[in-house]
Order: sequence, then structure tokens, then C-alpha cells
Amino acid sequence: MDVSIIVIGDELLIGQVVDTNSGDIARMITPYGWTLKGVATVHDDAAAINEAIESALSKSDIVLTTGGLGPTKDDITKATLCSVFGGGMHLDAGVLANVNEIFRKRGLQMNELTRSQAMVPDACRVIPNDLGTAPVMWFERDGKILVSMPGVPFETRHAFSHHVLPLLLERFSDRSVIEHRTFVVTGISESALAELLSGWEDALPAGFHLAYLPQAGYIRLRIDAAGSSHDSLTDTLDALSHSLKAIVGDRILAGEDLLPEQILMRILHKRNLTMATAESCTGGNIAHRMTMLPGVSEVFKGGVVAYSNEVKMQLLGVREHTIASFGAVSEQTAIEMAEGVCKATGADVGVATSGIAGPGGGSDSKPVGTVCMAMATPGGVFSTTVHLPGDRSRVIDRASTTALLQLVLALR
Amino acid sequence: MDVSIIVIGDELLIGQVVDTNSGDIARMITPYGWTLKGVATVHDDAAAINEAIESALSKSDIVLTTGGLGPTKDDITKATLCSVFGGGMHLDAGVLANVNEIFRKRGLQMNELTRSQAMVPDACRVIPNDLGTAPVMWFERDGKILVSMPGVPFETRHAFSHHVLPLLLERFSDRSVIEHRTFVVTGISESALAELLSGWEDALPAGFHLAYLPQAGYIRLRIDAAGSSHDSLTDTLDALSHSLKAIVGDRILAGEDLLPEQILMRILHKRNLTMATAESCTGGNIAHRMTMLPGVSEVFKGGVVAYSNEVKMQLLGVREHTIASFGAVSEQTAIEMAEGVCKATGADVGVATSGIAGPGGGSDSKPVGTVCMAMATPGGVFSTTVHLPGDRSRVIDRASTTALLQLVLALR
Repeated sequence: MDVSIIVIGDELLIGQVVDTNSGDIARMITPYGWTLKGVATVHDDAAAINEAIESALSKSDIVLTTGGLGPTKDDITKATLCSVFGGGMHLDAGVLANVNEIFRKRGLQMNELTRSQAMVPDACRVIPNDLGTAPVMWFERDGKILVSMPGVPFETRHAFSHHVLPLLLERFSDRSVIEHRTFVVTGISESALAELLSGWEDALPAGFHLAYLPQAGYIRLRIDAAGSSHDSLTDTLDALSHSLKAIVGDRILAGEDLLPEQILMRILHKRNLTMATAESCTGGNIAHRMTMLPGVSEVFKGGVVAYSNEVKMQLLGVREHTIASFGAVSEQTAIEMAEGVCKATGADVGVATSGIAGPGGGSDSKPVGTVCMAMATPGGVFSTTVHLPGDRSRVIDRASTTALLQLVLALR
Repeated sequence: MDVSIIVIGDELLIGQVVDTNSGDIARMITPYGWTLKGVATVHDDAAAINEAIESALSKSDIVLTTGGLGPTKDDITKATLCSVFGGGMHLDAGVLANVNEIFRKRGLQMNELTRSQAMVPDACRVIPNDLGTAPVMWFERDGKILVSMPGVPFETRHAFSHHVLPLLLERFSDRSVIEHRTFVVTGISESALAELLSGWEDALPAGFHLAYLPQAGYIRLRIDAAGSSHDSLTDTLDALSHSLKAIVGDRILAGEDLLPEQILMRILHKRNLTMATAESCTGGNIAHRMTMLPGVSEVFKGGVVAYSNEVKMQLLGVREHTIASFGAVSEQTAIEMAEGVCKATGADVGVATSGIAGPGGGSDSKPVGTVCMAMATPGGVFSTTVHLPGDRSRVIDRASTTALLQLVLALR
């Protein structure tokens, strides 16, 4: 099945909001061999929405729209859907009951605008929205389906996975199957990796394709495969994965699509180790990334955001002499931070960062982007200094990733 | 000027990467009164890219493409640009020198694939890419401009702001001007706010428009204005802002487009206070959000990620009796964490969170989404318990935002 997505909202086109719905939907449909042909982002404007819908319906079997359904005056999607699919609007008792229930739970007062959420086009079938007030609406024309969903990401994710996708799967059966295998690779540039894999890539059978997805600090390498059955794809993918691993070697950190923190969590689990963080320039981002993972409490004890020198000394036991002699941004300080956080929390493994994220604070000897990091592990203490490009947010993000990857390399 | 953006890359349409480039560009062009008409996301596929380019050129004065320029085989944008604008490709000495220099700086080895980055269509003018190897390419046809840029966000942001936008501004002069005023509002639902502002909104003069941008925990309210001069817009916007403030009252936390952490940083600066964080369920996210702000070190001392009970007791001095009697997820524990982190770090203000982010760990009395938070301030200690909807990442994000907003309300 070919799917198109239309993302509706002025806020996206002035850069106030980033669309994550289309990616969420893409991840949910690709396992069924369905292809997201394209995403069009348009204004809350009847003509633009209309044109995008007609164009998408001409190219795809399924069109999904997100956004443009709020109770306020900048939302005109429902009226446009009436003009595309015919008919007027009516008050839907089920939607109204859902709106009432949500308002009751949140302790909010209903009003006329809220009630307007329950008005739906005559041409649609209403699909439940368990988490919000805007209705999910299913339309059909000439055997094609259009489903209009709200723009709030967690509502869309839930409604699509729990209601819309099952109905679409029931409606459409599809013969072609797509599979992906992803490898996480580090310690090699994209172009050197491509050169290394050039012969392997040229020999790929029809229907198989290699994609390079460079991230900050590592590369995701993905084999895409399209065929008629899961079984035949799986056999070829197994063989290709085997030969790819033989070429890329131990630069492969994982044979599936995992974040660095997920790879680390698995190693800690496997080795029965606990960890803690001591962060200066990364300011809690490493801890945040670890604690986004469900079940991390078994291996993650916590940590210290040691932004000021006082906190480095008081909570982590970094010696005043070390900071005075080598500076707060030094491997010596990072080592004492990593060792200190193990002592303070009882963790087996400590990771520490101290650097200059910018835009200020750089010097000739330690320019912006200089980050010292240390790993205290049962196998010894390691430290390194890296020089990272980009603005503050990029330095913080990349320093966090590098520290996580260094810890993976030290522990695996 | 009407602008269209084409985002190129298979990785976007299977949901492995989220497009942030179009939002970055949108934020840079809107101050000049230029309108981003739409964004089309397409596969690394010649026909799809071609169609998107022709459609965008027919609707817009300026077309910007991002992505599809890497050295590896999945990138076919350059060949497609040759087919659209005519001519073949040649090796550009300037681009090659830039690629060489970047490889030298990073200590990487050049190879044939890397050299292919320096091949450019004959029809283009090459624009510098200071931060990466892929060329930025400027094309013209029938008075319209197409600029092809790389997909890596920090390269695109830099190349667009430093080179492409200045050239476009030089090329096009435009009479219409757009301005925005944004207000950050909390403590009221979107529909209640819309009802409150209904009369005010109906009376808006031509060219003025109110947009509601609900976030998790607050609402951004934006007045959009289009007119012929900055001066006339500014006067009317001042008057409208004044009357809007009179209606919405102290639910307005800021009269400009600021994140909760930015509002908090300003208040801390103004009151000459320092803060520290004690995070259990938010796992470092509040500290991370604070430390993403340049200059925060003047008001932010650091904090403790107290994920385990041992860390809560050892580093924050939470009493074992408190945890045993009330549980780790309790306002009593949060209060001791907030007070403890002030004592441990010497900060004036402490904020603490303890909750159940899920998916596991919930109970009948404390279901997933229950978050206790406490604020220790010079004006006293405050605590509250909230029940947040959504999955783990949403609970963490929303709990962080709520804690930041509570602290703003307590300190302002």
C-alpha cells in the first residue's frame, strides 16, 4: 500500500513546532510492507489543504492527515473535508460524550467552543480518540481511504496504533513485504565505511539496498529488503548480515537499531554492573538519556550534575588542588569526578564529563567544543579529550553520545 | 516572497530521522515577511524529487532543498538537479579544497567517494559550506531560485543563515512585512482561553490573526500581523498586546516566546538567586533543560539525579523514615530532596521531582503518571502532586515542564 501524510498547521511552517507524527506513523506502517510515499506540510488554509488532499489521493491508497482539529478559530480542516467528501456537519453524540468525560476527568469546565469539537462531517465514520477531544475521522472515496487525526503527538500515536492501523490492515491486504536490518557502527567515517563496503554493496541482490544514516558520533547502517515473503527475506538478510559483519568487524556495536544508551544498558545488565553519572558540561543529559529507558533503574543509580566547582568538590570529592592545577576542564578533574560518583552512589561504573559547550568560556588552549571525559570501570579508569564542532546544543548532545559510546567500548 | 522546502531522504519516510531543517529555515525567513508555503518530504528517488521540484517551482519564488547530498550510493539529488536545470557535472576545485581541509582537520583519510562530493552540476553556482563536505548549490530558472543544501542540521543552519539567506535577501526585495508577538500562558485550558478571548479576537483588524499553540503544561498564544511597514504594525501590536494582557491577566508568564526554563532563568537573574535540582523520575531532564541555556552557570549550581533510594538518602539527606512511611513517591520525600539539594550545593532554590514515569511501577494509589514535586525557595517550601497522561517520555517531559512552571509561579 502507498501512504501519503498531510501535516496541517501554520505553527509548523513558521518553525514553532516540529512534526514528529509522520515519523511515528512511518515506523508503524513499514513493518507491513507499506510505503510512506511522501509528507506534505501545509498551512491552515482551505485551498492548500484541498490541493494537498487531492494530490495525495491521486498518488496513494491511503491518505492520513494530522492537525488542524483544535477548538479554536485557526482550525478549518473539518470544513475543508466536507467540501472534499460532500455533505454538511452534525453533532456526534459519541464524540460529545468523550469530550464531556475528558473535561470531567481533568476538572475543566465545558464551553461552546469545546462542544464544537463534537461537530463532525456527515461523510465520515468516527473513530475513537481515547486521549483527546478532537475526533478521528475516516472517509472513503473511490476505494481510497483518508483518515483525519489530531495533531497532538501522543493522541495521534495512540489513535493510529490502537484504532486506525488495525482498521486499515483489516481493509487492505498486501502481498509485498519489507524488512530492515540495522547496525550501529562507530570509529569510521561515512565515506571510509562506504569504500570498505563498496564491493559488498555492488553485489547486493535485487530488492536489497544499503542506507547510511550518519548520527553524531556513529553511523546507523541499514539493509532494506523488499520481497514476497518474510521467510525468503529473512534467509537472505541473515546471510548478508553475516558477510557485512565479517567486513566491518568490531566497529559494529550492535546488530539492531539501538541508541547508544540502550546498548550500554544491555551491557550493564549482562555484566551485572550498576552505573552513575557525574556531569558538568553535559548538564544532566547523559542521566536524562539513560532514564528515558524503561527498566533502567536496575542498572542506573543516579548521578550528580556538577555544574559549579563547589558541587564538584562537595558532592564528588574532587580535590581543590586538581581544579587549581589542571582546571575544571581537564582529564584529571574528570577522572576524580568519575571515581567520586562511584564512591558517592555505590555504583560500579562512573562516567564523567567536563568541557566547554559555548558560546562563551573558550580559550586558545581549550576552545569551545573541548570536552574531557572519564570512565571509572572495574577494568580500570580511562579518560579522553575530544574537540566537538557545532553550537552549544550540538556540543552537549555529541559529548553525551561520545561518553556513552566510550563507556560501551570500555565495558564490552 | 513565497518559499517552498523539499526535504529529501528515505530515512525521513521510514521514521528514522525527524526533519528539523524546515523549522529552522522557517524561523529565519518569517522576520522578512517571507512565507513558507509548504514542505514536501520525498524519497531519494529521481522521479519523486523531480516532481517535487517542478511543483515547488510552479508555486514559489524560492525553493530550498535539504538532504540527499552525502557521498554514498543512496544519494541521487545532484543527478536529478542536472536533469532539471540542464548540463552535466564537473569537479569543483573550491569544493575539493574544502573537503580536503575538513578531512585534514578531522584526521581522516580522503578516498574516491569523498572526492565525488566535489562533483557539482554545471548549471549551479557553488555557495560555501563551512562546516561540512557536501556543496551548497544555487540554481536559477525563469527568475526563480533553487538552492540545494545538505541534510545535516547544523551544516544547513549555518550555510543558510551565513550564506544563502543574505544572497536571497540581496536578490529579492519585498514590500510586505510580517511580525509576531508571542505570550506564554498557563493555568487555563485552550478552549477556556479561546472563549475568554473570543470578543477580542472577533475585533482584530484586517491582517491580524491569533494562533493558539498548546504545549504540554502551557499555551503559547501568538498574534500574527501582516502589513506594509514595521512601524505601523508595531503600534497596533503594542495596543493589541496591552488589551490582551488586560484580559488574560497574570496567567501570562511571559510576553515573548520563551521556554519555561528561559523564563525561570530570567527570574533567578533578576532576583539574584541560584538554583539546584534534585530529580528522581525526571532523571536529569530539568538540569539538562536548564544547562542548554547559554549563561546559565550564573544561576544554576547543579544537582543530583537521585534515581535510587540510596542516592536520595546519601547525597540529599532524605531520611529513611520518610521513605519508609510515605514512600519514595511522596510530597514528603520531594520536600526533603528539595531542601537537601539546597544544603548540599549551597543553592538558594531547590526543585525536586519523584514520580512514576512508567510503563511499570504503578499501583492503585499511585498510578503511572503520578509525580510529586517540591520547591524550596526563600519564601518557603511548596509541594504538589500531579497526575500526567501519556507514555514514559511524555510523563518525564511534562513533569519537567510542570516543575519549571511551578518554580516560576513560586518565585515571580
